Amino acid sequence: MEVVQVLHMNGGIDETSYASNSLIQKKVIALTKHISEEAITNLYCSTLPRSLAIADLGCSSGPNTLFLVSELIKVVDKLRQKLGHESLEYQAFLNDLPGNDFNTIFKSLPNFQKQMSYQMGPGIGPCLFSGTPGSFYGRLFPSKSLHFVHSSYSLQWLSQVPEGLDNNKGNIYMACTSPPDVLRAYYEQYQRDFSMFLKCRAEELVAGGGMGLIDEDKVNSFNIPQYTPSPSEVKTEVSKEGYFSIDHWEVSAIKWNDFDNEFNASNAFSNDGYKVAKYMRAVAESMIVSHFGDAIIDEVFLRYRKIIADHISKENCQFINVTISITKIG
Amino acid sequence: MEVVQVLHMNGGIDETSYASNSLIQKKVIALTKHISEEAITNLYCSTLPRSLAIADLGCSSGPNTLFLVSELIKVVDKLRQKLGHESLEYQAFLNDLPGNDFNTIFKSLPNFQKQMSYQMGPGIGPCLFSGTPGSFYGRLFPSKSLHFVHSSYSLQWLSQVPEGLDNNKGNIYMACTSPPDVLRAYYEQYQRDFSMFLKCRAEELVAGGGMGLIDEDKVNSFNIPQYTPSPSEVKTEVSKEGYFSIDHWEVSAIKWNDFDNEFNASNAFSNDGYKVAKYMRAVAESMIVSHFGDAIIDEVFLRYRKIIADHISKENCQFINVTISITKIG
Repeated sequence: MEVVQVLHMNGGIDETSYASNSLIQKKVIALTKHISEEAITNLYCSTLPRSLAIADLGCSSGPNTLFLVSELIKVVDKLRQKLGHESLEYQAFLNDLPGNDFNTIFKSLPNFQKQMSYQMGPGIGPCLFSGTPGSFYGRLFPSKSLHFVHSSYSLQWLSQVPEGLDNNKGNIYMACTSPPDVLRAYYEQYQRDFSMFLKCRAEELVAGGGMGLIDEDKVNSFNIPQYTPSPSEVKTEVSKEGYFSIDHWEVSAIKWNDFDNEFNASNAFSNDGYKVAKYMRAVAESMIVSHFGDAIIDEVFLRYRKIIADHISKENCQFINVTISITKIG
Repeated sequence: MEVVQVLHMNGGIDETSYASNSLIQKKVIALTKHISEEAITNLYCSTLPRSLAIADLGCSSGPNTLFLVSELIKVVDKLRQKLGHESLEYQAFLNDLPGNDFNTIFKSLPNFQKQMSYQMGPGIGPCLFSGTPGSFYGRLFPSKSLHFVHSSYSLQWLSQVPEGLDNNKGNIYMACTSPPDVLRAYYEQYQRDFSMFLKCRAEELVAGGGMGLIDEDKVNSFNIPQYTPSPSEVKTEVSKEGYFSIDHWEVSAIKWNDFDNEFNASNAFSNDGYKVAKYMRAVAESMIVSHFGDAIIDEVFLRYRKIIADHISKENCQFINVTISITKIG
């Protein structure tokens, strides 16, 4: 399966869209925002660039897409004003796979930009947005052209389903019943992919440029070309490559039933897995349909919801996030 | 009317899409390709850049979108190999208004890039594509970040319907019965817009950077926020601004019935305006629907086709193109 052609979050803005089902990802961004903000503050103060190019890798299509990049721009511009420096030119690159719904992002851009320039006040330099379709396991930008790279809830996606999974019958992912060589195949694919990711970004970042990476560390479901590394696995890979120094490091958690409680308190579906199943569907539907066709999709998520509800009632289910802030070594 | 929100070529790839109805624009590109190629050859030889950033302004969504930029890249790379220089990094920015169907372009990109790198042979630097949504009557790119700008059949679109058209009743565009102040309003809007276009591009281009602009010079139809300047009007504006020197200058023509004959020879519709009406529909539908609703759209183009057929039978109808190649003054 060509992941680059198949995988995308559900497009548009309707009930089953990713845009309507990305509160988990939003919460993660909020939870880890202080790390990205600190990283970009340090970057600005140490390099004082005249223009600032930021990339969000795996931007998806929804309310989070423009939110994070614009928050980072606001942080820098506030700082710039405080220090009495001249205005900057901001350039934001929104990256995702070519099947991502860029049209919906782009259509919301004119109003978003108006609102943003209103919030930022007068005397602001241009804030220029582009979309860059493609896999972040390859080159996306010219050498030394980026100042800051952000990526949230995307690096758990592998570039492909690992090869040599023939004896993983009955499973569609790493599972308790998977033999050790299946686990090894996943881990090695993760190593190859993440190493390529670091190499490409090292080429694209200016010296002293920064990255804020948020990784997902829990096996959620049938998310085939995914590997959710442990914190120490991420750390090992970053150190091994030698392109980057590690500035900041954090592990955080979000409980599954937080969502049902917080956003759905008056809803009879509360705690029965409705929300989590809906969120997962917005992410996984494109892959399942491409594999199995769309006839089964409603039934699959109905059953999945029951499994989730069962889990929530028995154990403390949570998303674990690994957040890492690193700087390109001059 | 906010042109930036409303205007877009018909998306997708079906019968009424712009992608299926853009042969006129393709023919224009072929007809004027030698000018763009000469311009980019001169640019490469005089500046020998290590990376090359090209923007196509008003790229639309269809077979032409990726075609032109990739042809320019191939020209430069052939030259680079001939001169024995090291490989370049190519960056292509595809610009159009936010309502343009970027999704269709982006989905075709992986296969296009594969094919392109196959045609260009081994040892080629990365060819990186981004989409930049927004009006080219404002800033789209950082200062001094572009080497070459191309724009074909886009600059006749104004940024807005000129103000003060109250006494243009019964017309939806400049017409024989329009009073002189309506014509003046259109001309002055064109001057303001084109002046802003040149100013923005002068900021975005590196010194010595080039532009290849192809303009449409015939009043075709009910294309409301359009102004199709005469060759001398374009020349006057470019000289007046003083940012650019004019390198090349050409006026070319394409006959309307060429299309019916060439692409539709065995078709009973030949010469009855079928093709021309279909092409116009792919371009104008979004604006008409936004204005009048979609109930009338089939009937409008049926009547329009009869008018076109009548014109073709009586006079020598043609699209006149003004092509201009200019260089940013150091």
